[in-house]
Parts: sequence; structure tokens; C-alpha cells
Amino acid sequence: MTNTPAARSAIKHALSTTREGDFAQWYQEVISAAELAEESGVRGCMVIRPWGYGIWERIQTLMDQRIKAAGVENCYFPLFIPLSYFAKEAAHVDGFAKEMAVVTHHRLIADGKGGLIPDPEAKLEEPLIVRPTSETVIGQAMARWVQSWRDLPLMVNQWANVVRWEMRTRMFLRTSEFLWQEGHTAHADMPCAMGETLRALEMYRGFAEDVLAMPVIAGEKPENERFPGAAATYSIEAMMQDGKALQAGTSHYLGTGFAEAAGIHYQNREGQQALAHTTSWGVSTRLIGGVIMTHGDDDGLRVPPAIAPQQIIILPMLRDTDEDAALLAYCEELRAALAKLSALGEPMRVLLDKRPGKATQKRWAWVKKGAPLILEIGGRDAASGQVSAVRRDRLWQDNGKVNFAAMSREAFIAQAAQEIEDIQHSLHAEATARRDAQIVRGIDTLDGLKAFFSDDQKYPGWVELGWSRPTGAALEAVVEVLKGLKLTIRNTPLGAAQPEGTCPFTGEAAVETIYVARSY
Amino acid sequence: MTNTPAARSAIKHALSTTREGDFAQWYQEVISAAELAEESGVRGCMVIRPWGYGIWERIQTLMDQRIKAAGVENCYFPLFIPLSYFAKEAAHVDGFAKEMAVVTHHRLIADGKGGLIPDPEAKLEEPLIVRPTSETVIGQAMARWVQSWRDLPLMVNQWANVVRWEMRTRMFLRTSEFLWQEGHTAHADMPCAMGETLRALEMYRGFAEDVLAMPVIAGEKPENERFPGAAATYSIEAMMQDGKALQAGTSHYLGTGFAEAAGIHYQNREGQQALAHTTSWGVSTRLIGGVIMTHGDDDGLRVPPAIAPQQIIILPMLRDTDEDAALLAYCEELRAALAKLSALGEPMRVLLDKRPGKATQKRWAWVKKGAPLILEIGGRDAASGQVSAVRRDRLWQDNGKVNFAAMSREAFIAQAAQEIEDIQHSLHAEATARRDAQIVRGIDTLDGLKAFFSDDQKYPGWVELGWSRPTGAALEAVVEVLKGLKLTIRNTPLGAAQPEGTCPFTGEAAVETIYVARSY
Repeated sequence: MTNTPAARSAIKHALSTTREGDFAQWYQEVISAAELAEESGVRGCMVIRPWGYGIWERIQTLMDQRIKAAGVENCYFPLFIPLSYFAKEAAHVDGFAKEMAVVTHHRLIADGKGGLIPDPEAKLEEPLIVRPTSETVIGQAMARWVQSWRDLPLMVNQWANVVRWEMRTRMFLRTSEFLWQEGHTAHADMPCAMGETLRALEMYRGFAEDVLAMPVIAGEKPENERFPGAAATYSIEAMMQDGKALQAGTSHYLGTGFAEAAGIHYQNREGQQALAHTTSWGVSTRLIGGVIMTHGDDDGLRVPPAIAPQQIIILPMLRDTDEDAALLAYCEELRAALAKLSALGEPMRVLLDKRPGKATQKRWAWVKKGAPLILEIGGRDAASGQVSAVRRDRLWQDNGKVNFAAMSREAFIAQAAQEIEDIQHSLHAEATARRDAQIVRGIDTLDGLKAFFSDDQKYPGWVELGWSRPTGAALEAVVEVLKGLKLTIRNTPLGAAQPEGTCPFTGEAAVETIYVARSY
Repeated sequence: MTNTPAARSAIKHALSTTREGDFAQWYQEVISAAELAEESGVRGCMVIRPWGYGIWERIQTLMDQRIKAAGVENCYFPLFIPLSYFAKEAAHVDGFAKEMAVVTHHRLIADGKGGLIPDPEAKLEEPLIVRPTSETVIGQAMARWVQSWRDLPLMVNQWANVVRWEMRTRMFLRTSEFLWQEGHTAHADMPCAMGETLRALEMYRGFAEDVLAMPVIAGEKPENERFPGAAATYSIEAMMQDGKALQAGTSHYLGTGFAEAAGIHYQNREGQQALAHTTSWGVSTRLIGGVIMTHGDDDGLRVPPAIAPQQIIILPMLRDTDEDAALLAYCEELRAALAKLSALGEPMRVLLDKRPGKATQKRWAWVKKGAPLILEIGGRDAASGQVSAVRRDRLWQDNGKVNFAAMSREAFIAQAAQEIEDIQHSLHAEATARRDAQIVRGIDTLDGLKAFFSDDQKYPGWVELGWSRPTGAALEAVVEVLKGLKLTIRNTPLGAAQPEGTCPFTGEAAVETIYVARSY
């Protein structure tokens, strides 16, 4: 629902910061107001609170179904990776990232001053690295498991925590510890491995659109943005409400380089030894950051129903009187009736919030958390078989009042599942329309690009343009120019038509479409 | 099914080591033969393979339902805990365990000789500990979240990896890294906190019996076995097939000590500040070790159907001929029909194993993995609408042949769910009967105890006896005596009748029942 500027001014929003005012501060306020996560007191690590973790559990459940349906099996590999495994990788990968947590001791002792120190006697012979990703250790296991073509494809996945030491952290988007899934597969040849790389990419694209209601562009990253050692890297890119791009998932075709380093050989059907072709692909708790910046508004988060830990909240307006019992009984009956119904292919998740506290306060807490449907039910509603409901995505009337609608209990139950599904689709449609409106085409000069991004437009969005796909030093020159404008190439969308015109960077004929944007 | 010695000799078991021959080696062989886990190349850490991890996922799913049903919410807390948090704990806890992984650096650099070393410039000001358990960091969060009596009880849980540096490791039972859940709750007073402690204990007891088919004794640990800083520690204790006890889950009433250290205060209904009473409780991947040693036999693992990743395996006897298509179609129809049915309250999990390879080899792989029901289907079965099935818990005929039974497809489908449930119950009954037969009562002298455990009986089991419940130095003396016999006190079973007779340790009147056993 769009409000006219006049009407909008009548609305008193739940947050103190607006998206237009200060997007970065608004983001932090949503995380706090929706009780998603908080600083832990441990540098760069967050505490994920129940509502935030509940969203992650929903993401896990629905992604895991898709991963398993593809024939990928879950495993668990060690948290620690011996330093020597990385030395092997570092030897052949220039872009090797070095910011990692290093375990050097295995015991604490008293320091004699009432404190504790690492015991010098318990220094590890070889330091251990807390995994930043698991290619090396999984590669070692694959080398043990793969002997013959019959063992291929070998497709495993793990849900795990990983650590990358980050200097500047931002909750969900860039934290030293984060949660993710990492798929790792080995195949007989390049076509099979590339097929899996693109299957995982399409899985992520569909998941982002259908489950997160977050429109994304799936495509190949430019050479300079490849995962170190990968032969090709693909990503899904989402546009946040400030126009910046968020890389929301990646899928890598690793060629035979990692197989060679780990020794993943197999005997092919002809009896000869061959190197496997491997892939890896992952999404992380970063997706929650994407959901916040795609669907949040000036009243807090709006959670797409597919990943909402609770889809419908029932708030009884308790008064600490004898009538409360009848009201609670009415609400519990309603909850049970709704919980028997299905929406989006699953039983609906309905919470009767009986905690002590004022109903209005509780309402605003759930608005900020972004529960899709909120019901308030008073004693008179219970007596007359009514409910009063508001959709989180249509929170306000034009006059500045909260958009509650009263209806009979039966009428509400009859259309609740449809309403939930409609919220899911509306959020997706709204985000897609906004994203599409913020993609600009037709810029084919560097000056045009500069003008667009130096515009007084606060949140400029993305530029879709044709380029000549330079490589090597020529690409580096382009990257430098873009860096000066604080811009990056996001990806080359799969299936885009061959562009016409000129590459704004090289002046050569454009051969490929790319997106250029600011990014997280 | 019991086999007579004569018949037994006709059986050629799938494993090379028997339980009677060498229990410890048999345990390792089951883990390897069932492809549950393997050494990772990282000291003390294991790789959990798909079948092992699938069992853990089943345990997680079913335990998580029970945890959530109790109103406990899942969260996620940091992997790293600042050293100073432990120093605080160490100051008031004598039994503070010090074997922990210590992170001291956050970067690697080249050592100039082609290798990598921790960057001396990137030494952390304060070392970080990889969490061995999360009381301290969760306590800090609780102190922020709890203000008033309205915030209590506060009940959170996390599924996480934890690390305790172990010198002697054994897969699933004692590894440096393991997976677990840790519940942490804060309450207004002792009765509420004790209620939660015992609720969690009963949850674990019921879970072990009903889900793992593993009989356990729930009770209180003696004072000397309390979690450091706890006011009371409870456990579930299971008897393994070698007669040793396995502590399979613990629940702690922590009193107000942890709340005091972390500052978990609340304003009570009378407006006064009070300290919260806290609890913690956990089970880990150790449960899988318990399942192996409870249900495994000389042919490998037997997985209780409730936690079997696949309950029914369909093995088509493929011949690489044109007839394979019809056979596969028949098997797929059978799979689909079975997957529509429910057993133990959930849809049945049925796998059609189409991988290349000989059916007999595949059969033995599934026997070793312990899939509850295995079907072999040949071309003639498909043509005549038959199936041939064997229950993993009734694998052998007395004549040494595998106990396959042929029946019509319809007859099999009609009773498959019942069969699955019967396997679950049979495994539980078998384990309970064995456990009960190996508990000895009536020993009331130390000599009697010594004689029992010095017997030439290889796997002596447990002794149930009455003791005088000594404390302090008197208890320490008892513990020392038991230590000399390689024995420990397991627990005092909840609800046991007051014993009669004399305490074998003190000669005083017995006041309480305990179990004495060897243990893992």
C-alpha cells in the first residue's frame, strides 16, 4: 500500500530511524527492535536471539529439503584444520585469505595473580585454524572415499559455523563467526560438475524468490571476483532498499585444481586414473540481513510467511479479571482451528501470546518483529465470535490508524491460509517492482556511469550495461576505475541477450551484459 | 532370537571381531563397517559420515520437538569465549577443567620458507577460548535479558559444536570436538529451577527409552560427580553390552552461583531485587556411541527405526539387461506405496538403492549399517508381485542362512508399518532384558563387591546396593576405594525405595540406593 505524502505524515512509525533518513542506522535498529540478534561481548560474534534464530531454522529446514532432494547427503567435518592444509593451498592460490582464528594452545593455567593464561607447556606442535570454509579438509575425505567412477558423483553438504576474522563487522552481513551450509561435490568430468554448479545456483535463485520473497539475479561473477582457485564463480545478487547489491549465495566450479591438491583421483570406466572435477556452494546467515533490507520498513521487520517462525499471532486483551478465562478459551480454540490448516504447503504456525503485559505493547513488539498476521481479541470479540486482524504488510490506514479489520471468527479462519499466501506473494511483488524500477539501462559511457552514481539521488540502484568482457590487466584497469567510484561488477546474468552498443570501459563492442552497483 | 550354540557356529557373521572377543575393537569395527564416522586427520576430531550424521539429524529432530514443546526457545551464542569469563569462573570453582582450545592469533603470514605461521603482529590482546560449554556467555546474555519476574522463566537452548581437549579419544564417546544441545534456563526460585532440571531429565529418560530404544536409569549423581559449581547433577545411565555404564545425558540445578557470577538479577513481584536460579542440561553425539553399544551385534549396527535415516531399503537385483527397467519400475512403485504410510507417528523412510554394484554386496553394506528392514527384489519377484524381506533384528535362521521371507507385495505393504514399530519395541525389550539380567543386588560388603568385579566374568554388569550417603572426606574415601577397583558410582535412581541393610563402605545403615559400575 502506498500512502500519499499527506497521509504518511499522519503515521507515527514504530522505529525512530527511517530507511530514508539513515539506512545503516535503520538496519541496526530493526535488528534490535525485532530482537533478532545482539552484540555478544565477543568481538565480531553475535548472539542470535530466538526470533532471529527461528528465521534461520526455517531457512535451514526449507533449504535442507532442497539439498536432500538433489541427492546431496549431509555430513559433519572438523571445526579445526591443520595449518599445513592451508600452506598447501596458499602455495597455489594467490588470493588466499589470511584473516583466520589460530589455535595455538590446548590448556589454561593459573598465572599466579588470580587469572589464567595459555599454558606454555601446552603449545600445539602444529597450530590449528578454525575453519573459514572446508574445501581442504573435505577434499582430503573425498580422496579417501572416491576410488572408481561408481563412487561419482559424490555430493555432501554440511551445516556449520565458520570463522573469518573481520575488522569491520555488521550483524548478519559480516561477522567473524557465521552459520552457513557448504555443499561440496566431486564429479567425473567438467559437464557433470558444471551441471551441479548451475543446479545449486538455480536452487538458490528459486529459494530466494519463492521462500525469502527476495528477487535476485543469478549469473557469473567476473574473473576478478572468483573464489580463489575456482574456474568459475556464480552468484545470486539481490538489491537492498538502499539500492546496494547483496551477494546472497555463491556456487563455484572448481575445475580439477582442488582435486589435484587433495588427490581426488578415480578409475574411469576405461580403467584409467583421472582427476575429479569439484564444486562448492554456500549460503549463510547473511540471508537474514538480505531479508531485513529487502522487506523491512519504518515499523521494523516484515518476515515473509514461509520463513516466519510464527505466521499468526493471537493477542488476547487480558484484564486480570474473571473474564480472562473465557477470553483465553476462545483464543485457544481459534489457535487450534488455525493450526489445523495449511498454508504454503505446511501447517500454519500460530502463536497464542499469553505472556503478561499490555496488549498494545505486545502488538508493537510483534509489529517490529514482523509477524505476518496479528490478531487482537478482547472480551467482547470473544462473546460475539469476532476477531480483529491486521496484515503486517498493510499496517496503516491512510488516516494514520492501524489497519485492523474486524470480522467473524469463521470468516477469518476461512481465508487465513489464503491471506498468508497472499502476504508471501505481495512481499515478493513489492520487492521485485522496486528492484526493477531501480535498474537503469542505456548507459554506455564512463561519464554516463559517473553521472549516474554521483547524482544527488541518495540510493541510485544498479546499472545494467554491455561490456567487452576484458580479461587480465585490461579487467584490472576496469576494476580500478570502478573502485574509484565505489562500484563493483555484480555478475553477468544467465540467459541475457547479447547486448548491442559499446563497452563504456574499453570502447570496444559490448559482448556481454553486466550489473554495476554499490554493494555490501 | 537366540541361536543355540550349534546353530550359531553355522552363522558367518559380517564383522571380523565379535563383541565377546574384543568389545573395544568390535566398537571401532562397527563404526567403520556401518560408515558412521572416521578419523579426520585432525587430532581428536572425527568426520561424521552421511549414515552417522543422518542418525544425528534424526536425534536432533525428535529431541528438538520435545525441547520446543516444553517452551524452550533455540538461540545461537558465540563459538569463542573471552579468557576473562573463565577466569571469573575459575576463581570460585575448584574443579574447573582447563583442557581447552585457545585462540591466540587472528592472521597467518608466510614464513619465508614456503610455509605459513601465525602472524606475531596479529596476536589477540585477550586470548579466546573455543567454548567447552556456554554457561558463562549465556549467563552474560541472561543478565541483559532478565529484568523482572515477568521475564522468568527464561528458557533457551542451542545446538552447537563444543571443544574439550581430550588426550585419549574414542569416536562418538570422547572426541575433542563434539556436537550437542545445551539447554540453559533461569527461574525465580529453587522449586521452579529444580522442576525444570527434573523435567529435562525426564525428557532425556523418555527419549532414550522411546526413541533410542535404550533403557536408562535416571537419578542423581553423587556429590563428587557434580558439574563444577552445580548444586545438584542428575544423569541418565545406560548399560552397554560389555556391562559398562554410559552417562548418556545430564541435567544440572545450578543454584544461584552462576547467576551471581553473571549478574542475573530480577525484580520480584514485591519490587525487590533477587538472584535467579539457573539450570543447564545437555546430550551429545555420545548418544550415537550408546546406540552402537546397546544395539550393535556381530553383523554391525542395528539402528532403532525411530532414528534410522532410512527404515526400509529396497534392493533391486539388477542384471544390466533389458529386464532391469521393469524391475526398477516395480521397485519404485513399491517405494512410493510404502512412503505414503506412517510408522511411529511419521511417514516411513524408504530408500530404493539403485546404485551400481552387486545386490549381495549392497545387502551386506545395509546389514552392517543396520537398516531395520531390507528387501531384495529380483526380476521374477517383480513379474509375480512378490517381495523378499529380512528384519535386521532377526537376521539369521538357525541353519545359518539369512532369514529372508518371501511374500506378496500386498501382504508386505499391509504389515510394513507394524513391522517397523515391532522392531523398535523388540530392540528396546531385548536391551532392557539384558540390562536387567546384568544388575546384581544383595551385595552389602566391600569383599562382596571386590569378588563380583574380580570375577572371571568378562562383562560383570552393575551392582545395585544401599549406602549411607557419606559426604565430604568420607565420600572421598569411598571414591578412592572404588577407584582402586576401577569402579564409579553412577547415580541414585529417582523414586527408589529406601534400602535396608548396611553400607558396604562405611558399615553404617544404608539410606539410599546407588549403582556401582565400570564406565565409559
